Amino acid sequence: MSMRISELAQSTGVSLPTVKYYLREGLLPAGRATAATQADYDQTHVERLRLVRALADVGGLSLTSVRRVLQTLDAGDDQVPYAIGEAHTALGDAQSGLHADPAAPPLRAITLLQRLGWYTYDSAPALGQLEAALDAVDQVGIPPSDSVLDSYAAAALSIAETDIDGIPLDQEGAHGAGIPGGAVGFVVLATVLYEPILLALRRLAQAHVFAQRYEEPSRPGH
Amino acid sequence: MSMRISELAQSTGVSLPTVKYYLREGLLPAGRATAATQADYDQTHVERLRLVRALADVGGLSLTSVRRVLQTLDAGDDQVPYAIGEAHTALGDAQSGLHADPAAPPLRAITLLQRLGWYTYDSAPALGQLEAALDAVDQVGIPPSDSVLDSYAAAALSIAETDIDGIPLDQEGAHGAGIPGGAVGFVVLATVLYEPILLALRRLAQAHVFAQRYEEPSRPGH
Repeated sequence: MSMRISELAQSTGVSLPTVKYYLREGLLPAGRATAATQADYDQTHVERLRLVRALADVGGLSLTSVRRVLQTLDAGDDQVPYAIGEAHTALGDAQSGLHADPAAPPLRAITLLQRLGWYTYDSAPALGQLEAALDAVDQVGIPPSDSVLDSYAAAALSIAETDIDGIPLDQEGAHGAGIPGGAVGFVVLATVLYEPILLALRRLAQAHVFAQRYEEPSRPGH
Repeated sequence: MSMRISELAQSTGVSLPTVKYYLREGLLPAGRATAATQADYDQTHVERLRLVRALADVGGLSLTSVRRVLQTLDAGDDQVPYAIGEAHTALGDAQSGLHADPAAPPLRAITLLQRLGWYTYDSAPALGQLEAALDAVDQVGIPPSDSVLDSYAAAALSIAETDIDGIPLDQEGAHGAGIPGGAVGFVVLATVLYEPILLALRRLAQAHVFAQRYEEPSRPGH
């Protein structure tokens, strides 16, 4: 099914000026030219547009980071062995207001990972993010204890196992079939787009635990 | 110890124009006037300034949300029974680019919570966030299965128990002593400021799980 640019905008709920902006910026591939000033768009444009909006709105990525993620997806590297590293490098620290000092080694983060017995690679962007996050909570006067960090780490490990298990297999057992960008694409998308689900569930779980301990219970929807 | 505004800026690493902006906007209380155009600042200003920067930079809150959080902290309600509800209301959906449709009831989120057996209250802002997050991943073509959601929920529950256990007690057993804003303050700060720790740990855990399954391992710092 082919459509005009106005129909593309309408069917995705994205404003026409924004669609034109994405076209100019190369975030959305050009349509098939049908006249000097007209082009046709198809389902691939609808999907790409939804993806850009999800990464920007849900994932909170800047357009620079969205472009880097799209390039990783378009490279289409289906090799699982590289998926995680490429996904994290594409995402970088774009999502967080935290900027780790690139000159200072993330010593506390590395010490924590050694205590946990986790493998890592020295250039992992999340090491600097963890270091900056730990510094920030110290400055505000609510440093997490080792047992709090252990508990967070155990939960993160269980989520990570779910994430890695979730990398889709095709009928021949290859990873990443049917997902934009294959296995790398899946890891990028799941990392960014499942985060809001996790954070919302944490808040709802806080309310649940709290209600169980302190309040008269009331069940949802009753 | 009293200090001039320039020393306040220097000791917190916040630029002088930004400090002046926060003073004008009421995010930082006025100093003690020592002359027509001069005022003295003290340690409480240093702490408040660090808190504002942490909420904005680490927590990613808008200044509007920072102001709402500060008001909640300054109300100083130490009653734990209200801590969670007030914390979530103060935070609202400020942190996420997701905006739930206020007219549409969050049916999928409520269904999920009923399946989990979690208590909730109908106006919980996180219900709308969860609904919007679930809609967004569907649109991009990576809907999480029920078993993925269950696994995320179990991890979120374990984190929430850690969070509620962490609400500090004073020597008389009252909650929230020594933290700006008491118990409510702790829940607000831990909710916002521990999030980046959790997200960084999730990414590091992905790399760890991945290394264990597919790669030659290498230990951090070796």
